[in-house]
Amino acid sequence: MINIDEAVEAIRARDHYSAFAESPSPRVYGEGAAEVGRAAFDALLGTDFAVSTPGAGDRVSPEVSPYGLTLAVAYPRVAADAIDELITGAVAGTHRWRDAGPRHRAEVCVAILEALHARVFELAHAVMHTSGQAFVMAFQAGGTHALDRALEAIAYALAAQEFHPATATWTKPGRKQDLVVEKAFTPVGRGLSLLIGCNTFPTWNSYPGLFASLATGNPVIVKPHPNAVLPLAITVQVCQQVLAENGFDPHLVTLAVERPGDGLAKDLAVHDAVKLIDYTGGNEFGDWLVDNARQAVVFAEQAGVNAVVIDSTDDVDGMINNLAFSLALYSGQMCTTSQNLFIPADGIDTDQGRFSPSDVGLALGRAIDELLGPDEKAVELLGAIVNTQIPTLTERARSYGEVLVESRGLTPPAFDQAVIRTPSLILVDEDSTAYEQECFGPVTFVVSTSSTQTSIHQFIATVTKRGAMTAAIHSTSDEVLAAMREAALDVGVALSENLTGGVYVNQSAAFSDFHGTGANPAANAAYTDLAYVANRFHVVQSRR
Amino acid sequence: MINIDEAVEAIRARDHYSAFAESPSPRVYGEGAAEVGRAAFDALLGTDFAVSTPGAGDRVSPEVSPYGLTLAVAYPRVAADAIDELITGAVAGTHRWRDAGPRHRAEVCVAILEALHARVFELAHAVMHTSGQAFVMAFQAGGTHALDRALEAIAYALAAQEFHPATATWTKPGRKQDLVVEKAFTPVGRGLSLLIGCNTFPTWNSYPGLFASLATGNPVIVKPHPNAVLPLAITVQVCQQVLAENGFDPHLVTLAVERPGDGLAKDLAVHDAVKLIDYTGGNEFGDWLVDNARQAVVFAEQAGVNAVVIDSTDDVDGMINNLAFSLALYSGQMCTTSQNLFIPADGIDTDQGRFSPSDVGLALGRAIDELLGPDEKAVELLGAIVNTQIPTLTERARSYGEVLVESRGLTPPAFDQAVIRTPSLILVDEDSTAYEQECFGPVTFVVSTSSTQTSIHQFIATVTKRGAMTAAIHSTSDEVLAAMREAALDVGVALSENLTGGVYVNQSAAFSDFHGTGANPAANAAYTDLAYVANRFHVVQSRR
Repeated sequence: MINIDEAVEAIRARDHYSAFAESPSPRVYGEGAAEVGRAAFDALLGTDFAVSTPGAGDRVSPEVSPYGLTLAVAYPRVAADAIDELITGAVAGTHRWRDAGPRHRAEVCVAILEALHARVFELAHAVMHTSGQAFVMAFQAGGTHALDRALEAIAYALAAQEFHPATATWTKPGRKQDLVVEKAFTPVGRGLSLLIGCNTFPTWNSYPGLFASLATGNPVIVKPHPNAVLPLAITVQVCQQVLAENGFDPHLVTLAVERPGDGLAKDLAVHDAVKLIDYTGGNEFGDWLVDNARQAVVFAEQAGVNAVVIDSTDDVDGMINNLAFSLALYSGQMCTTSQNLFIPADGIDTDQGRFSPSDVGLALGRAIDELLGPDEKAVELLGAIVNTQIPTLTERARSYGEVLVESRGLTPPAFDQAVIRTPSLILVDEDSTAYEQECFGPVTFVVSTSSTQTSIHQFIATVTKRGAMTAAIHSTSDEVLAAMREAALDVGVALSENLTGGVYVNQSAAFSDFHGTGANPAANAAYTDLAYVANRFHVVQSRR
Repeated sequence: MINIDEAVEAIRARDHYSAFAESPSPRVYGEGAAEVGRAAFDALLGTDFAVSTPGAGDRVSPEVSPYGLTLAVAYPRVAADAIDELITGAVAGTHRWRDAGPRHRAEVCVAILEALHARVFELAHAVMHTSGQAFVMAFQAGGTHALDRALEAIAYALAAQEFHPATATWTKPGRKQDLVVEKAFTPVGRGLSLLIGCNTFPTWNSYPGLFASLATGNPVIVKPHPNAVLPLAITVQVCQQVLAENGFDPHLVTLAVERPGDGLAKDLAVHDAVKLIDYTGGNEFGDWLVDNARQAVVFAEQAGVNAVVIDSTDDVDGMINNLAFSLALYSGQMCTTSQNLFIPADGIDTDQGRFSPSDVGLALGRAIDELLGPDEKAVELLGAIVNTQIPTLTERARSYGEVLVESRGLTPPAFDQAVIRTPSLILVDEDSTAYEQECFGPVTFVVSTSSTQTSIHQFIATVTKRGAMTAAIHSTSDEVLAAMREAALDVGVALSENLTGGVYVNQSAAFSDFHGTGANPAANAAYTDLAYVANRFHVVQSRR
């Protein structure tokens, strides 16, 4: 059983903490657990998914697996004329949920996580076959780590709501007699919450907002990306089951699936009843939400240009291997993958002599090849390319500079329907404009600069303009490290310093690392801090 | 010396807590303290006020005292072409302020409060002669209670920033060896903060935002209401002195005074550098800020229609006397003064028999007269009318219904230049539209309804549409109390129940009562909760 108070302690201590074991090994999850989960996933294929969506009419099966598997899972579709019925149904259980109070809400939310955890292998296959993540990554990032992020959000929600007591006696000493007033403080949800999911991390990027809103008393409509419905459909199904088991309206969490092109997210986002929106995705729609969904508080994670400033190192092998892993993982399709490696044109000092920008790029290419191994192994790290635009973008990037490392297409027999690509490295000059905006997918720019000082300057310029979820520095100089820390504080981006071991710039650990800061254009919020939860409820007082 | 940790405990406990004694008595503040403060205030009149505002050019003396006193204090004026220089100066000290860290910032902020407290009599006269508050009220609401609200905001800011440790060691157990990462978490201010003050409560309504922003690492430009500059000028002067004494840039807090009609607040509010805005005032400009200052987070307290639902009472004298005081205080010019008294047409049960709506109104009129006493005493409760529109509005309100109690103009000899008015009570029917919007000043509507149920219904309808800072209920029925509590939670307004003693619906105590909720149109934020501070800074992390 998960102890929510331990989780609350963990968000404050920020040491390692996890409630969900990340290894899918039978030693951890038991013999046969993986097979049962796989069978449960297989059993969903080609069926009508069991979830209750008020107002839904016909069914829709929008998903295409990046691995070529035909999912053909049919979900209730919410057409434009069904939105009011959906919203009426979604908010119907709000009072009872409010009256349950913060702690009981947290307990029910934790029960949802435990029920989801019981289906983590099934969930992992759903994430794998919608996002294109490799299985182990889908199990971790899409399963156990997503559950940890959810628990973290629930812990913040509880801590923020319990920051004030539910009741207090106020006694003001008086000359004749004391003034005594009994007071009650009730956290009340801001209102209906809309979650707009993304394709690459349908659970990891959705769970914080979903559970932060639910735990603070708000009903949540879950609107998945049309290509990544199943992981969130399973999630909503479990939410509905556990809510009902605990005597709450299952429609406190609902699934709203559209036929591609319906524009459902827009219609929902500007509805008067929607007071909170959590969004992960491209800038265009994110900016549209912020500009148009004025009745709601919008938490948006958008695109950025993540950067690594490479100045010097006393462990060039460690640095190269660490960077190689971070670039290869999920073919660079993480919002945290480094895009720009800033390296002085005259090279960097290392324990193996001087490395020019090209030397670094070529060493990275060799390290990636070695890391990936044969094609049938490589796919376990690379996963599949999530959408058809990415190979085009990757191909186009070749023209932006000198191709140091080509992106190769792999076709291991077991995944002959998938598009699988290795990372590419393109050498560009600091004057190039190519690296100044996000180039999503397996493309990294080695940016040759006139000095480390210029590298930091370009890091500041690009992140100020386009934002970043991550930044890293490699340097043996205390002055350079201090300058980069100052720069990272100025532009408001999390900084990783001299990572050469088993911690990677593109991975953030729940309960310890903040994902995003809210302080630069890549995201206006962080997973998870007080600002992420404090605006999701109000405190309404009474006194007598 | 103020103990900030005690203040942090107090915001969590919500019992009575105050760091600044509210009685101006010589027994508390010492013989002669009042006279010294008055002399300090007098010495300011007709002088150039000593405050440093980068970019300021000529001087301007915009204030007219509601009591007729000629202030003629001249402040540096910020013209439109000086804004960039002001902003450059305001942000120059940000890095050093950030690097000081949350606790040292809190200590410096507390030192500012202590220095302000040392000038509290001077400050009280400044508040009195700009807002029109009577002296004792100006001393309390404008002085000690404002300082308590400031300390409360500093305590929240510190608690929110110290919610996470400054550094942590992350140790993830590994099979071969543990993964160990050293992490640092730095609260970084969101950016330049703009405070737009109001006329009626130049300090009480400004201090929470000013100190919440400053304590979370943000420089603050203080833009006072043109009629109420002096209290905030003294405040900025003290901020600059204490900041400089502690080695910080005094321009972290600056005073921006305009010539009436300059439109300075608008120009500042939409400047790219401004990331936070605190505003108290009318709906028109508040709505404009929210719509146009899109680069900033706007905390706005606007107008509302505060309500009292009167159903029954077992202490009609206590109820009437309590209501009478709350209506008379500052001639109803508080944002928390009740405007609408909803009473069933067939009357209410009391310990003295049945009271019709007219009976309640007439009893209130008698109680107000008795409370006020002779004119020279009455002014000590009523204060002066803050602006020339109010008598016009009060006169106009006479036509909306039956005048139960006339607003009288008083002319005590000592204040022969002031406009002083007693509260009026106008009987209207529930179908009237007069009471559905704010009628600022000494006007209260007795709304005759078909039943208490209708009263609650109209309370919900008016507050949903126009908002409210306060609500109250008088009832001996548990069912009615429960229904009203539910209604108050639904519309998101703080509720006072059966107040018959020395606690008044329009007064809220720092550290215990939340002023506003953020959940209805009267205000989008509360003084003070976590949401009020959590968005004023970001946490930026580094790890190695």
